[in-house]
Amino acid sequence: MTVAVLAGGVGAARYLAGLVQVVDPASVTAVVNTADDTWMHGLRICPDLDTVMYTLGGGIDGERGWGRAGETWAVKDELAAYGVQPTWFGLGDRDLATHLVRTQMLDAGYPLSEVTQALCERWRPGVRLLPMSDQRVETHVVVDLPGEGRRAIHFQEWWLRHRAALPAQAFVPVGADNAKPAPGVLEALAAADAILLAPSNPVVSVGSILSVPELRAGLVAASAPVVGLSPIVGGAPVHGMADACLDAIGVPTSAAGVGAHYGARSAGGLLDGWLVHTTDGDTEVPGVRVLAVPLLMTDLAATTAMARAALDLAAELRR
Amino acid sequence: MTVAVLAGGVGAARYLAGLVQVVDPASVTAVVNTADDTWMHGLRICPDLDTVMYTLGGGIDGERGWGRAGETWAVKDELAAYGVQPTWFGLGDRDLATHLVRTQMLDAGYPLSEVTQALCERWRPGVRLLPMSDQRVETHVVVDLPGEGRRAIHFQEWWLRHRAALPAQAFVPVGADNAKPAPGVLEALAAADAILLAPSNPVVSVGSILSVPELRAGLVAASAPVVGLSPIVGGAPVHGMADACLDAIGVPTSAAGVGAHYGARSAGGLLDGWLVHTTDGDTEVPGVRVLAVPLLMTDLAATTAMARAALDLAAELRR
Repeated sequence: MTVAVLAGGVGAARYLAGLVQVVDPASVTAVVNTADDTWMHGLRICPDLDTVMYTLGGGIDGERGWGRAGETWAVKDELAAYGVQPTWFGLGDRDLATHLVRTQMLDAGYPLSEVTQALCERWRPGVRLLPMSDQRVETHVVVDLPGEGRRAIHFQEWWLRHRAALPAQAFVPVGADNAKPAPGVLEALAAADAILLAPSNPVVSVGSILSVPELRAGLVAASAPVVGLSPIVGGAPVHGMADACLDAIGVPTSAAGVGAHYGARSAGGLLDGWLVHTTDGDTEVPGVRVLAVPLLMTDLAATTAMARAALDLAAELRR
Repeated sequence: MTVAVLAGGVGAARYLAGLVQVVDPASVTAVVNTADDTWMHGLRICPDLDTVMYTLGGGIDGERGWGRAGETWAVKDELAAYGVQPTWFGLGDRDLATHLVRTQMLDAGYPLSEVTQALCERWRPGVRLLPMSDQRVETHVVVDLPGEGRRAIHFQEWWLRHRAALPAQAFVPVGADNAKPAPGVLEALAAADAILLAPSNPVVSVGSILSVPELRAGLVAASAPVVGLSPIVGGAPVHGMADACLDAIGVPTSAAGVGAHYGARSAGGLLDGWLVHTTDGDTEVPGVRVLAVPLLMTDLAATTAMARAALDLAAELRR
């Protein structure tokens, strides 16, 4: 049983922690969003890759959901004392070592996929972590800045500095058109018995991954059923600010809305199956098998049950 | 009264802290050794510049003599956990922020002298800090490595990893021949009323500064008297491992030995005056006015007296 998972950050990381309880981690490939990546103080930062790596490797701050457990902030405080901008990015000391290693390897010419593999030699997340692409893809958000007019700003600036409160006019995955899937991604999709869309942000996580043309084509062409897990429960995101992203692209913040946005594979979309939370049991998505199960990752047992439900649905759809 | 000081790290920093008690800091230019500088984990590190900047700016770890007070070591520990080499370099978290700012400014094209000025906007050391050169000069140490034969290794590797215990065959200031003094250095030497050689390592600190041809020529041609302070007291270095450096170039580890190594300006050397410690009162250097005064920087009062003695000797020699 081999599984490929399209993964964003916190939600996907927690979900993967449940998935590896019910399937051999070595048979799981996580294709991780890198469009949130950024340069900060000269360091290359890959928030989603690190969140997944730290979570599965036992190094995550479980309360916060991102960054390292036992984190300290000396470097961040010092940079602020130098008056260096930006100050709104949460750059922890422990975390920073990861960025130093990554930046130096990238500078030496290694592609991000190999850098990620090298970092995982320490963290041993069990599953194979692949960046969606070795090329740079960067989500920019088109906003109207007070007094400045319409501007495209980096996703992280919109997300962290403005806390997604500045209405987004559009999300642009800059570089996606020329990006190729990272080595191993297409093979993992083609070889999978099940392809899962983690309960991640449908626009800037899963959507960004699928903005790489060959990657989307590889998913659509895969023989395995594609099962998504709704990140929206009862009309609100379980985690994060997906509603602000969905508003911007005119998609209702509901399990049905996101399901319809992904669309049925039979109609040129992505989904064969769609898991929604029990309270969203009346959700219908034309052409897609919708199943209502508990989708709140309150603890590992609940998350494991979610993982099993997705694999069971995939098995049913494979028949 | 304007003063130019050729400065290494810890000894020079402490001496400068005394000097600014007796002369307007704004009239002091410290020309700082950069041949100990290195790249570490992708960051540009300038140990002597930082030691002087932190010391005069109130940020130094006074016990250790280098690095930041209240330092933490999370990044260093994490890099070691990744198995990244080298592990022998003391890269503190607070200190690291300085290196991040510096590296990013250098990457953006600013010369080291302008980067140093920018960093000093925070630290306000009072004196003007100039790197000896904006070009890269790097002291390499020729050693016989067990089982590997003769190799040239970076000074920091010899100094910190091998603790200067590996016999040095030679010191090579790589890049010095093509290096120019940083902007302002020659002007500071020409305009000075007194030029001081801080009680720094004569070989790898003061010697490296003077390995920049035009800088040495500028000092020799200056109208101001040149007064040196012996870093050797009673046949041993007051601080550091200058003896290992002097051994390598065949200079006796004594106040007389270093004085003769610097040599009299009247005979093509550097010195007009040479301050030695009271216990080295019998020191003679042909052609150089030698004066014995207390040269142990036990506290700020003692250091201030040393500064006054050097300026007084310079004033005497100017007549």
